[in-house]
Amino acid sequence: MPDIVPLDRSQEPALRALIDGKAKPLGALGRIEELAVQLALVGGTASPNATRAVLLVFAGDHGLTESGVSAYPSAVTLAMVATLLSGKASANAFARVAGAVLRVVDAGVAADLAPHPALILAKVRKGSRNAALGPALSAEEVDSALARGAAIAREAAVEGFDILLLGEMGIGNSASAALLVHRLAPAPIAQCVGPGAGHDAAGLARKLAVLEQAAARTDATDPREVLAQFAGLEIVMMAGAILGAAAARRPVLVDGFICGAAALAAIRLAPAAADYCIWAHRSAEPGHAAVLAAANAQPLLDLGLRLGEGAGALLALPLVRAAAALLSDVASLDDVLAGRL
Amino acid sequence: MPDIVPLDRSQEPALRALIDGKAKPLGALGRIEELAVQLALVGGTASPNATRAVLLVFAGDHGLTESGVSAYPSAVTLAMVATLLSGKASANAFARVAGAVLRVVDAGVAADLAPHPALILAKVRKGSRNAALGPALSAEEVDSALARGAAIAREAAVEGFDILLLGEMGIGNSASAALLVHRLAPAPIAQCVGPGAGHDAAGLARKLAVLEQAAARTDATDPREVLAQFAGLEIVMMAGAILGAAAARRPVLVDGFICGAAALAAIRLAPAAADYCIWAHRSAEPGHAAVLAAANAQPLLDLGLRLGEGAGALLALPLVRAAAALLSDVASLDDVLAGRL
Repeated sequence: MPDIVPLDRSQEPALRALIDGKAKPLGALGRIEELAVQLALVGGTASPNATRAVLLVFAGDHGLTESGVSAYPSAVTLAMVATLLSGKASANAFARVAGAVLRVVDAGVAADLAPHPALILAKVRKGSRNAALGPALSAEEVDSALARGAAIAREAAVEGFDILLLGEMGIGNSASAALLVHRLAPAPIAQCVGPGAGHDAAGLARKLAVLEQAAARTDATDPREVLAQFAGLEIVMMAGAILGAAAARRPVLVDGFICGAAALAAIRLAPAAADYCIWAHRSAEPGHAAVLAAANAQPLLDLGLRLGEGAGALLALPLVRAAAALLSDVASLDDVLAGRL
Repeated sequence: MPDIVPLDRSQEPALRALIDGKAKPLGALGRIEELAVQLALVGGTASPNATRAVLLVFAGDHGLTESGVSAYPSAVTLAMVATLLSGKASANAFARVAGAVLRVVDAGVAADLAPHPALILAKVRKGSRNAALGPALSAEEVDSALARGAAIAREAAVEGFDILLLGEMGIGNSASAALLVHRLAPAPIAQCVGPGAGHDAAGLARKLAVLEQAAARTDATDPREVLAQFAGLEIVMMAGAILGAAAARRPVLVDGFICGAAALAAIRLAPAAADYCIWAHRSAEPGHAAVLAAANAQPLLDLGLRLGEGAGALLALPLVRAAAALLSDVASLDDVLAGRL
């Protein structure tokens, strides 16, 4: 597991004084000021940067779909990966607006993918096993996915990216995430399940029944074992990417419910990782509330999103950059009053 | 008064069908989808654009400061105008992040300003009169400020800006805005007053007492008359700019409390202007709640901001651009399923 340096909180008063000395009323930039402090502590500098941003969209398939947890067939994962690689998905459009590079990571798509300049081939296996019937992944597969995720994040840092955004694509992954949150938050499974990409009442009842069956199979609570029981490979690899980004002292923008479940797993594996997470938005998926409560997280946006793909992380990126700019680019009140501009 | 075309709501079902047909679950982009519909209706096109953006920061001084409504002296208006023109204010930093042009409009600063490439000279008079003692502006001054604001917005549209962002700088203007909202929402004055740039309990009590005195002078409710009684010139000119932008069919991103008071005035003058307003954020200033309720507005962000300068509008701009990109740049589900990418 990568070694994560806890933030040096002794720098916080000096950073707050720096922000309080800017040419603006005290506290007038609200959450942006809090974000500026976090960014500076993460980077270990009073001039943090969030200019070069990469969105990593982790893709994987889920054996749980065999039990009818999703309104869409597994094949849609592959179709949406193709859409992301062609630049025509929502996340591509939002990435262009935000000025972020988008890459797709094949963590566990149930098909062979052709090489593509924007595709990182990191497949551990073709989809997870059906968690309703038995463990979704082996312990080795979990470790492999964690290690590959951490390596991908480390390589992004080495490449020069200042900030990592995480997103995902995987039919069935809101079911997998519900099981993870149920066990890791912990929270009753009924509070963790939701419509995902879309369900009518009957579909939602079926999804809940399948998840109750899966949850009843095991009383695992150890985070690594919970991942093996219930996770999909894109979720484990996102958890690994968070650990790797934190070890490389890069902030991570966490998207919605699925990504939040991965962040919760990362935090359960290494609590110090929490300080490196920026929670982008409050998802419309009901189970996200349990994630946010368990992580004591206050997301930046609340726009009723429930897409995935990292779309919400992309929408929050400009707020992070504004926070960095507050520290680097805004005059002090002293300079303004003395006419030193 | 500029002629504002009401939105052609007959196009709404077709736009919603277009968005529903995109390669994403139904409704999965929440507020971004609503914003996309509004943008398309405002522009009269299914491919609206929000690329070229200008933030107009309207500046003015307030006679009310003579009665001690602000914790800061009037001279700070001029100092912050200089900061904005030097590129070192928060709004400049955020404008660079957002990719927006920033211009300052001298609507009524109580000093002579030297020409500057980023300064629009539109001064009606040097500051408003003290509204605690009598009308702040004459009817002619109100009409002049409305006309100049509309002309500035029209010129920005002709220059090629797709979207206008409004912000302000003016010591004392939260007091002026409180009086306007009190009368135009309407709402009890105590619900409209707040700390503004900063007040202790005694300062806030003094501010409330001054505003109660001002409110008691007149029972005006006609929007033009209310503006003359209580407004500052930067607020009237922002109202004019909203009317001008709406007439030019450009969306307007409305910043926080002061800017919201101007938008409320614009809507009372021309109700059709409401459809052209996008409410950027929920301000921490208490009176903003009355503005939002009166305008039936749901702001995009809620970050505890209370700065002004258009800072919140700049933070919301990427959301507007994402909404435009959803319409223009995202594949349909049909194309994805048929492999036409």
